[in-house]
Amino acid sequence: MSNVLKKISWSSRDHNAHAGERSPLLPARPQGSPEAVEDDPEVTSQDDKIQNVHPPSSPKEIPHTENLLSLKYESLDYDNCENQLFLEEERKIGPRGFRVVEISRWFICLLIGILTALIACIIDIIIEKFADLKYLVLKDKIDAFTLNGGLSVSLVIWATMNAGIVMLGSILVAFVEPVAAGSGVPQIKCYLNGVKIPHVVRLKTLLVKVLGVIFSVSGGLAVGKIFEHFRRDTEKRDFVAAGAAAGVSAAFGAPVGGVLFSLEEGASFWNQYLTWRIFFASVISTFTLNFVLSGYHSQFGQLANPGLINFGRFEDKNEAYTWFEIPLFLIIGAIGGISGALFNSINYWLTMFRIRYIHRPLLQVLEAMLVAVVTATISFLMIYFSDDCQPLGEDNVVEYPLQLFCKDGEYNSMATTFFNTPEKSVRSLFHDPPGSYNPTTVGLFCLSYFLLACWTYGLSVSSGIFIPSLLLGAAWGRLIGILLSNISNANWADPGKYALIGAAAQLGGVVRMTLSLTVIIMEATGNVSYGLPIMLVLMTAKWVGDFFIEGLYDIHIKLQSVPFLDWEPPATSHSHIASSDVMSHPVVCFQRIEKVGHVVDLLSDATCNHNGFPVVDEQDGGGSDHFGKLRGIILRSQIIVLLKHKAFIERGKYGMLGYRLTLKDFRDAYPRFPPIQSIHVSQEERECTMDLTPFMNPAPYSIPQDASLNRIFRLFRALGLRHLVVCNSENHVVGLVTRKDLARYRWSEHGLEELLLAQA
Amino acid sequence: MSNVLKKISWSSRDHNAHAGERSPLLPARPQGSPEAVEDDPEVTSQDDKIQNVHPPSSPKEIPHTENLLSLKYESLDYDNCENQLFLEEERKIGPRGFRVVEISRWFICLLIGILTALIACIIDIIIEKFADLKYLVLKDKIDAFTLNGGLSVSLVIWATMNAGIVMLGSILVAFVEPVAAGSGVPQIKCYLNGVKIPHVVRLKTLLVKVLGVIFSVSGGLAVGKIFEHFRRDTEKRDFVAAGAAAGVSAAFGAPVGGVLFSLEEGASFWNQYLTWRIFFASVISTFTLNFVLSGYHSQFGQLANPGLINFGRFEDKNEAYTWFEIPLFLIIGAIGGISGALFNSINYWLTMFRIRYIHRPLLQVLEAMLVAVVTATISFLMIYFSDDCQPLGEDNVVEYPLQLFCKDGEYNSMATTFFNTPEKSVRSLFHDPPGSYNPTTVGLFCLSYFLLACWTYGLSVSSGIFIPSLLLGAAWGRLIGILLSNISNANWADPGKYALIGAAAQLGGVVRMTLSLTVIIMEATGNVSYGLPIMLVLMTAKWVGDFFIEGLYDIHIKLQSVPFLDWEPPATSHSHIASSDVMSHPVVCFQRIEKVGHVVDLLSDATCNHNGFPVVDEQDGGGSDHFGKLRGIILRSQIIVLLKHKAFIERGKYGMLGYRLTLKDFRDAYPRFPPIQSIHVSQEERECTMDLTPFMNPAPYSIPQDASLNRIFRLFRALGLRHLVVCNSENHVVGLVTRKDLARYRWSEHGLEELLLAQA
Repeated sequence: MSNVLKKISWSSRDHNAHAGERSPLLPARPQGSPEAVEDDPEVTSQDDKIQNVHPPSSPKEIPHTENLLSLKYESLDYDNCENQLFLEEERKIGPRGFRVVEISRWFICLLIGILTALIACIIDIIIEKFADLKYLVLKDKIDAFTLNGGLSVSLVIWATMNAGIVMLGSILVAFVEPVAAGSGVPQIKCYLNGVKIPHVVRLKTLLVKVLGVIFSVSGGLAVGKIFEHFRRDTEKRDFVAAGAAAGVSAAFGAPVGGVLFSLEEGASFWNQYLTWRIFFASVISTFTLNFVLSGYHSQFGQLANPGLINFGRFEDKNEAYTWFEIPLFLIIGAIGGISGALFNSINYWLTMFRIRYIHRPLLQVLEAMLVAVVTATISFLMIYFSDDCQPLGEDNVVEYPLQLFCKDGEYNSMATTFFNTPEKSVRSLFHDPPGSYNPTTVGLFCLSYFLLACWTYGLSVSSGIFIPSLLLGAAWGRLIGILLSNISNANWADPGKYALIGAAAQLGGVVRMTLSLTVIIMEATGNVSYGLPIMLVLMTAKWVGDFFIEGLYDIHIKLQSVPFLDWEPPATSHSHIASSDVMSHPVVCFQRIEKVGHVVDLLSDATCNHNGFPVVDEQDGGGSDHFGKLRGIILRSQIIVLLKHKAFIERGKYGMLGYRLTLKDFRDAYPRFPPIQSIHVSQEERECTMDLTPFMNPAPYSIPQDASLNRIFRLFRALGLRHLVVCNSENHVVGLVTRKDLARYRWSEHGLEELLLAQA
Repeated sequence: MSNVLKKISWSSRDHNAHAGERSPLLPARPQGSPEAVEDDPEVTSQDDKIQNVHPPSSPKEIPHTENLLSLKYESLDYDNCENQLFLEEERKIGPRGFRVVEISRWFICLLIGILTALIACIIDIIIEKFADLKYLVLKDKIDAFTLNGGLSVSLVIWATMNAGIVMLGSILVAFVEPVAAGSGVPQIKCYLNGVKIPHVVRLKTLLVKVLGVIFSVSGGLAVGKIFEHFRRDTEKRDFVAAGAAAGVSAAFGAPVGGVLFSLEEGASFWNQYLTWRIFFASVISTFTLNFVLSGYHSQFGQLANPGLINFGRFEDKNEAYTWFEIPLFLIIGAIGGISGALFNSINYWLTMFRIRYIHRPLLQVLEAMLVAVVTATISFLMIYFSDDCQPLGEDNVVEYPLQLFCKDGEYNSMATTFFNTPEKSVRSLFHDPPGSYNPTTVGLFCLSYFLLACWTYGLSVSSGIFIPSLLLGAAWGRLIGILLSNISNANWADPGKYALIGAAAQLGGVVRMTLSLTVIIMEATGNVSYGLPIMLVLMTAKWVGDFFIEGLYDIHIKLQSVPFLDWEPPATSHSHIASSDVMSHPVVCFQRIEKVGHVVDLLSDATCNHNGFPVVDEQDGGGSDHFGKLRGIILRSQIIVLLKHKAFIERGKYGMLGYRLTLKDFRDAYPRFPPIQSIHVSQEERECTMDLTPFMNPAPYSIPQDASLNRIFRLFRALGLRHLVVCNSENHVVGLVTRKDLARYRWSEHGLEELLLAQA
């Protein structure tokens, strides 16, 4: 194996040297917090063979942060623990009981849909009011000062206003809840992948962030607080998936797109029943949103124009496009791929810079404010130097026209583009009649907006990449459309159509979604005829972009050192790596009856911060290369509950005391199990024993020693496992495989790489 | 366990009594055919506890055919056999090799897309020409005879013509390739579920059937014949999924719908890379079809109106629907659910009747002809007695107008509905202006068409249920629309809109698809605004329908006694059933070095027609309740190849002869491995030994004895397994679980049921 792996500059043994270096993307948390139980760092002690292949270099320098794997993320447990308690409870629930459970699942999905939509409505209404307010204040000032020549005052007002708003937002994010930064999509992606991102599914996050993680939170809330039966990772993850779908559905009026988003970005396996529930949440969400907003916009009951972010309906034309445009679309797709890759590369270097130098919350707030001021200044300068005056149409399509130096009855096109909310600008670029934009204006806008958007993504504010990418793409797409119609004088080159294609290409180039994005765009534009070109464009953009660099979300996930499992095991993993290479070894095992003192000592031992322990038969002497025969597996959290409830057998007396505990005790503790340090065990209690048999999972999945990485990966991924026990042919435990053991292996252009493990 | 299971009237031990009873849905095949290797009937000898709970009743009577599980279906093996040969080959393939493999996969998907589209084009053009011809011949006759009063002659001509065409089709199906019967969807559903339906992926089937199974065949062909590397079930199944998507995509111009169809109906797990490839095939298919057909229809390059079956574009109206129509839509959905359930129930009883009494091919052909004659007669009578004359519009939207007894410039509306190809009738019902139809005509049509469609489905002809259901639903939907607009005098009750909603409701009520069907209808009608109502309608139809009876495809799958695995294990299976209840026992095991004679004898033994054999260490004495320690698993097909190539070690000489075989030898034999009877082994060879080690899968998935049915099910389903070894805590083999062992357990309203196993 070691001749195959390309080693990174020091061995995994030395990860403790970097314990102080934290990835500030999800910044440092207080040490004593309840989440401090680390996941399975048994991985650090494995694989003696590759130890110190290269001596550690200066620990200060982290050459490739994306080659680290953080130990701070726990894994979700998608596998049910079918212990005696669970089986007893299941036995009590009759067929009718199962129906009740099933109906509650649908009911929760209904709640998720409604809740998500209502929150989305509130946000939408607030933002709209706010934009109106901002416009009113600014327009008066600008118009006034323009006449007086005091333009710099307008600039100052504008910049201050923007910076102030951004400051508030970024303070909330940087100081109160760092998880709320960014678009929320990478977090959801990780969560659905099976990584427990701390704080993602919390009420606080919902309040701080609102839009991005909105979906998952409403999913998580319903489960965590309301329905006791669903307090386990399995159910929670399903509801988070429903929430994610409902969120996209509400945002873009795209219920099918929402389901596909949830599946394409997250789910590891496809279950029809689950999909139907997700779909249900998604439909309800769109419906509720439409219903409420149609009331708000005084068109009560007009449901046909759905979505929070509405790009306007593309009316069907009979000659939507012809075959000779297909190559053009493919070229636009390729441009999108290249532009997206460039965007991602720049953002990657920027994020690396931020990780190294801007990790203090205060600095983060200052950077966000700086971006706001620079954005205002650049916009202002561009407006100032542009002379792109357009006549105000009869129908007054332009929502916030700025006159500035234009004649009466005209408005400044550049100013309007910058001044509108981005989704309104997208709509204008899609639907304004040909001739509305001056190519120079649009070109300049593209260039400056590209850089600003790139700088903005990754700031400590809750903002996504969807709308900026669409706007950027719509702008250069429209530019291409304008140029084409100038060259060919043909009426087929409708600039609006090319704006749509460009928007798809740019967004596809950045995020690399295909199926779900196609449907989202189809649903958001209310148009099916452009479906085929959009698909072709998205695929081309993905292929071309993948040639250079990964998608933006994946980059950020890697930079956060999340143990993310890909869809497939790395190629060549069949032949080169076996369980015995992958697994963590030695493993801490328990016997079915253990002394309380021994258990407490093991759990308290700082070097043993495992989360799952194989339960074995008595060890038959033997060396340290294997342990007893596998009997079951028990989680740290379960043992903690046992200790908390003093489920001990008194010395000398074997009783059934442990049985007094019910599943409810475990559920009540979910999901925030106290750390072992907070549990007091007296000296006398230490002498008692505890019987793990009724609580352990008696049929854990196990795999033979010589299984390939490939097999392990598939098993792990398909079942959403947290721990997989490796046994020899005698069924003796020889090792344990966790998510991090698998996520360590990554396929790159240089061949198979092994990542380092870092405490941070 | 036995107190939980509701037993069906005789035990599984007695299945041999029914060996003669065959389910003629996939009728009898010659015994000596290469497919005759039966799958794993070790299941028949298990579960002593429930033996003879009820004595067998008269073996002639099969009270519930859907409670039988046929033993004739093999299982696909989605799990890779990672034996030494495989690992060696993988080791030789470098990173570049993997890229080549990956690119070939995309290339095959491209081929699948193009091929599917081209075949679809050919079919479409032939059908169109044929319909024109039929129209020309008939119209002349009918018009002529109408004037002369000799209407009965027209009837005879019409009926004879129909019966003749149907006869040809049904002879092909009944005598040449029975698998081509029906819509093909149940077969594909089973195949993607992991059941090897004999002959589905064959060139002959393609020729006989063409439309229904088209997709899977083009997928299967590319793999089986062209690309040697992909000769294994895993790859084949993926390509079949791509083919299914491409087929739906071509048929309805619904690339996204095609992907979703493939996933919703088939896939057990969702893999992003696979999905992208499927999507690619789907897009290419639509694109190719559009391109070719646009050329054929002399609108070369007009790509915006896709699909073979085109329901016409619903133009967006600003007031597409309002909130008070939502309850109406839900009611229509419920009607669709009830009507669909009624349809399914009648068809179920009809199919039961057919299974019992119409299993001779000749009878099947006669029945098909009878249906054709009756259809013609009823149509004729209805046309004759209707006096629904409609003016021929200026724009001449009606494609095959029949004047009959109407005045000049008018046409008989009923006749036109019956006389058109069904998809043209659907289009007319969707788009003809209000007032085009007389409610009595439409009502009569609904009634008669319902019965005829119900009778037709399940005949020995290649015909589906999609279009008839849509037509039926469109008719009663339009009827509701007409009645609504009569009652309310409101302009919101557009009959076309209600026809669309009704079509969705009826189809949803019959097949119970939701997500994929929504997208298919959205794409086929080119309209997104009706997306939300269609979703609501489909969900309601599904819920209401599921209350009464299952979906039509599921009914037919069950009636064919296919060991189909549901998406989830039956409820309550956690607590009531363990591996030791589920598994087959005893198991035939091999040791790693076996005598050739012993192997041949075991394989030839008629009572042992297993397909997978655990390979174990030497048995350490012990009782018959367990075998040696699990070392690997080997398939019957692999042993057959070994025997065929005489990969023996001569007596007394241990050599490496077995190693001379390469993976290619196994691939060449795929997928039609010869039966053991065809392999001659001399007396001398019988004395040789064979070493199974390099060929067996050394790391088979195994599960402990006390794992619940639930866990086994998830493992089996998620990984697409064929065999799962059950081991005790010493890692001794105690049993084997196959697909049939799991499919036996079914959840019904009475609780958990166990199905019988039947040879047929």
